Amino acid sequence: MGTVVIHCEWLLTMAEGEEPIHDAYIKIVDDKIAAVGPWQETVADAATEVLEARTKLVMPGLVNTHTHAAMVLLRSLGDDYPLYAWLKEKIWPREAKLTAEDVYHGTRLAISEMLRSGTTTFADQYFFMDEVARAVDEGGIRAVLSRGLLGSDAEVETKLEEAIEQAKRWKGKAEGRITAMLGPHAPYTLTPSAMRQIVTTARHYQLPLHIHVAETRDELEEIGKNYGKRPIAYLVDQGVFSRPVLLAHGVWLDEGEISFLAKQKVAVAHNPSSNLKLASGIAPVLQLQKAGVLVSLGTDGAASNNRLDMFTELRTASLLHKVTNQDPTAIPAETALRMATINGARALGLGDQIGSLEPGKKADLIMVDLDQSHLTPCFNPVSLMVYAARGSDVSDVMVNGQWLVKERKMVKWDESEIRSAAARTAWDLFRR
Amino acid sequence: MGTVVIHCEWLLTMAEGEEPIHDAYIKIVDDKIAAVGPWQETVADAATEVLEARTKLVMPGLVNTHTHAAMVLLRSLGDDYPLYAWLKEKIWPREAKLTAEDVYHGTRLAISEMLRSGTTTFADQYFFMDEVARAVDEGGIRAVLSRGLLGSDAEVETKLEEAIEQAKRWKGKAEGRITAMLGPHAPYTLTPSAMRQIVTTARHYQLPLHIHVAETRDELEEIGKNYGKRPIAYLVDQGVFSRPVLLAHGVWLDEGEISFLAKQKVAVAHNPSSNLKLASGIAPVLQLQKAGVLVSLGTDGAASNNRLDMFTELRTASLLHKVTNQDPTAIPAETALRMATINGARALGLGDQIGSLEPGKKADLIMVDLDQSHLTPCFNPVSLMVYAARGSDVSDVMVNGQWLVKERKMVKWDESEIRSAAARTAWDLFRR
Repeated sequence: MGTVVIHCEWLLTMAEGEEPIHDAYIKIVDDKIAAVGPWQETVADAATEVLEARTKLVMPGLVNTHTHAAMVLLRSLGDDYPLYAWLKEKIWPREAKLTAEDVYHGTRLAISEMLRSGTTTFADQYFFMDEVARAVDEGGIRAVLSRGLLGSDAEVETKLEEAIEQAKRWKGKAEGRITAMLGPHAPYTLTPSAMRQIVTTARHYQLPLHIHVAETRDELEEIGKNYGKRPIAYLVDQGVFSRPVLLAHGVWLDEGEISFLAKQKVAVAHNPSSNLKLASGIAPVLQLQKAGVLVSLGTDGAASNNRLDMFTELRTASLLHKVTNQDPTAIPAETALRMATINGARALGLGDQIGSLEPGKKADLIMVDLDQSHLTPCFNPVSLMVYAARGSDVSDVMVNGQWLVKERKMVKWDESEIRSAAARTAWDLFRR
Repeated sequence: MGTVVIHCEWLLTMAEGEEPIHDAYIKIVDDKIAAVGPWQETVADAATEVLEARTKLVMPGLVNTHTHAAMVLLRSLGDDYPLYAWLKEKIWPREAKLTAEDVYHGTRLAISEMLRSGTTTFADQYFFMDEVARAVDEGGIRAVLSRGLLGSDAEVETKLEEAIEQAKRWKGKAEGRITAMLGPHAPYTLTPSAMRQIVTTARHYQLPLHIHVAETRDELEEIGKNYGKRPIAYLVDQGVFSRPVLLAHGVWLDEGEISFLAKQKVAVAHNPSSNLKLASGIAPVLQLQKAGVLVSLGTDGAASNNRLDMFTELRTASLLHKVTNQDPTAIPAETALRMATINGARALGLGDQIGSLEPGKKADLIMVDLDQSHLTPCFNPVSLMVYAARGSDVSDVMVNGQWLVKERKMVKWDESEIRSAAARTAWDLFRR
C-alpha cells in the first residue's frame, strides 16, 4: 500500500489533551499512521506521494457503536407510528421474510451511506451475519458484528452456535477488520436461563456482549412485573456484567445503576435520534459521563432514525443534553466529537487500534471539505464539525490505510448499482 | 422568463389535503405556477422547455421565519458558553463594531447557505437593513425584513424612523421580493413607552410586528421583577397584539397564554436548534398546535445554531416534540413539512403567494436529488424529506420563477467569491 502524506488545513487527532493542528500533515505507511504534526517541507521525500488538501480537515473516522445496518431496507416504511404497532405491523412481518441475500444488499447500502458520511467502523446486531461480514469484507469498512440472540431457549441455542461458528470464521479475515461480540438482544426477549447460557459461552470464548438495556419505560415495567427487579439488577443476576458489556440505549437508569455501570466499566451506546423518534426517553448522558461511564454514540437502525449519519448524532447529542440539563456548556463540541471517535473505539474494545490519529494506530480517517458556505468562517474547527458540518461534507475516507471514498466518490464500489439492487430488494420485500 | 415544465419523480404541493404525486409535472409561466398534476405527454407543446428530472422530488421552497442572517460572520466564535457570557464577551462586542459593508458580506454568505439548502424566503431581524435588502435584491431570494428596534427611547426613535424609511424604499423593489415588518426586539430591551410608540407606528403604516418573546426563563424573571407580569400580559398592556405578530421562540408559555395567542392569530416561529443550543428550554409546540396557533420554523442566527439549514429544523422539531410528549406520533412528517413551508408563508403574511405549489402562486420551489444512498428506498417521500434528507440534497432552487441554483451550483453568484469576502470580513471583525 506504500506511503502517503496528507497536507491539510486542520488536523484533529482526538488524542488526549491535543489541540487542533493548523497547516498540518499526517503520514500513513501501509495500514498504519506513521506520524502527525505541523506541516514541514521535510516530512516527505521525493518518492512520497503528498496529497495537498489545504481546504480540508482531517480527523479520525467516526465510530457508530449501535446499528442494525440492513434495516435501511425498511427506511421510511412505517414512520410516525406508536412503537408497538410499528414493530408488530411494519417491522417484524417484514423482518420475518428477510433472506440472506436481502441482508447482503441492505448492508451494502448501509455501508455506502455510512462511509459517505464519515463512519469507518460500525457495531451491528442483526441476523444472516455471514452476509453482513461479506459486505464488510468487500466494502472495506471496519465492523464489530453480533448475531442477534432472542426467542425461545431452543432458538437461542441454535443461534448461539451459529454466532460462535461465525466468530471463528471471521477471525483474521478481511485484513482483521471484523471482530465479534455476542448479542443477547434484550432482557425482555430472552429467558433468564438463555441469558446465563450466553454469558457462559461469552466467557468461554472471551467475547464481549452487545445488548439493548433500559430503552423504554415498557421494558422497566415488563421486567419489574416478571422478575420484581429493574433491568440492570436482573442482568446482574444472570452474570451479564462479568463480561465486558456494550450497553445500547440506557435511557431509563437511576443514580445507583449509573454508579454501578461506572464501576463495572460498562460502555453505553447513546442513540439520540432513535430515542427521540420512538419517544423512548432522554438518556442521562451527562450524569453517566460525570460518574465516569464511557458513553459512545450510535444511529440505531435506519427504520428508527432514519439516517445512518454520525454527524447528526454528534450534533443531536450535544444540543439535546444542553437543554435537558439547562446548561449551554453541557457536552461541549470536543466532548461530542470524542464520543463519536475515541470513546466509540474504546466501547468496541478497539481503543488501542482506532479512534484517534496517533502513530502506530490503524489509518482510519476522514477528510471534511471546509470550502463551503455553511462552514465559513472557521474560528473553531471542532465547533464547526459538531454544530455546522453535515455527513455530506465528508469528501474522502480511508480505512485500514485504503482509500474507500475519494472526492465524494466510492472507490471500490459502484454506489448506483448498490442503490438499485437495494431498492429492488426493498420493494420486493414490501410486496412479498 | 417564459415557460418551463418540470417532469419529476415526486411532487409535494403541500396544498391542503393533497397527497404526494408520483411521476408528476409542474408548469411555470414567468414568475408564477401555471399548473401541477400527474405527468401527461400533452402538458408541453413543442415550444416549451421540459426539464426531465425523474430522479428528483419537487416541493415548495422552505421558509425560515426567524433569523439574523449576517450573524454567520460569528459562526463557531463562541460556542459552549453560558448565555450571558456568550452575549457579553463574544457577540455584543463584535456586533458593536459591525459596519454596513460587513452586514452586506455576511448576508450574502447567509443567503448562499440558505439557498443551497432549500430556503427560498427568510425573515430577518438585524441592522444595516438596507445592506440586507441589497443582498436580497442581488441574490434573488425572497425576504421579510425588520430593522431591530432596541435601546434607549431616543435610540429607538431614530431606529424607528430609519425602519419606516426603509419600508417605503423597499416597496415594489427587487421584483416585489422584499416586504417589511417592524422589529421591536424583545420585552426586556425596550421601555414600555418605546414599545407603545412602535405599535402606534406599525398601526399607522399597516405593518406587522416581528418580536422575540418568552425565549428564556431569565426573561420571565426580569419582566416579572420590573412589571409584575409575565411577558405576554406585559405586551398586551403595550397594545402589541393589536397588530399581526410574528412571535419568535415562545418557549415559556402557559396554557392561558397559548389560548390567547390562538385567539389573537399570533404566529409563533419555533427555533428548535437555537433553543436547545442555548439551553433556553423546549417550546410547547404540540400544545400550541392543538390550541390552533400557527407554528412555523426558524433557524435563528448562525451564532446560536450554527447552521441556517431548514432541513435540520424540520427534523429536530419533529423528533424533539415526540420525546417531549412521550408520543412517537407527535408532529408527524407531514406536519413538520407544513411548518417549514405553508405555515411559514402564512406566518409572514405571504400565505396567498408562496408556501405551496398551486396555480397562481409565485414559483418558489426546490428540487431534491433522490438518487442517493441515504434516501433509498423511497416508501414515503414526505417521511424521507423530514427524517432522512439533508440540506445538501437540494440540487435546484427557483425563486419567483428564476433559477438561483442549478445542479448544486449558484446561478447568479460566484459562491466562492462570496465565501472568501465573508471569511475576510469575519477575521477582520475578529481582529478589529
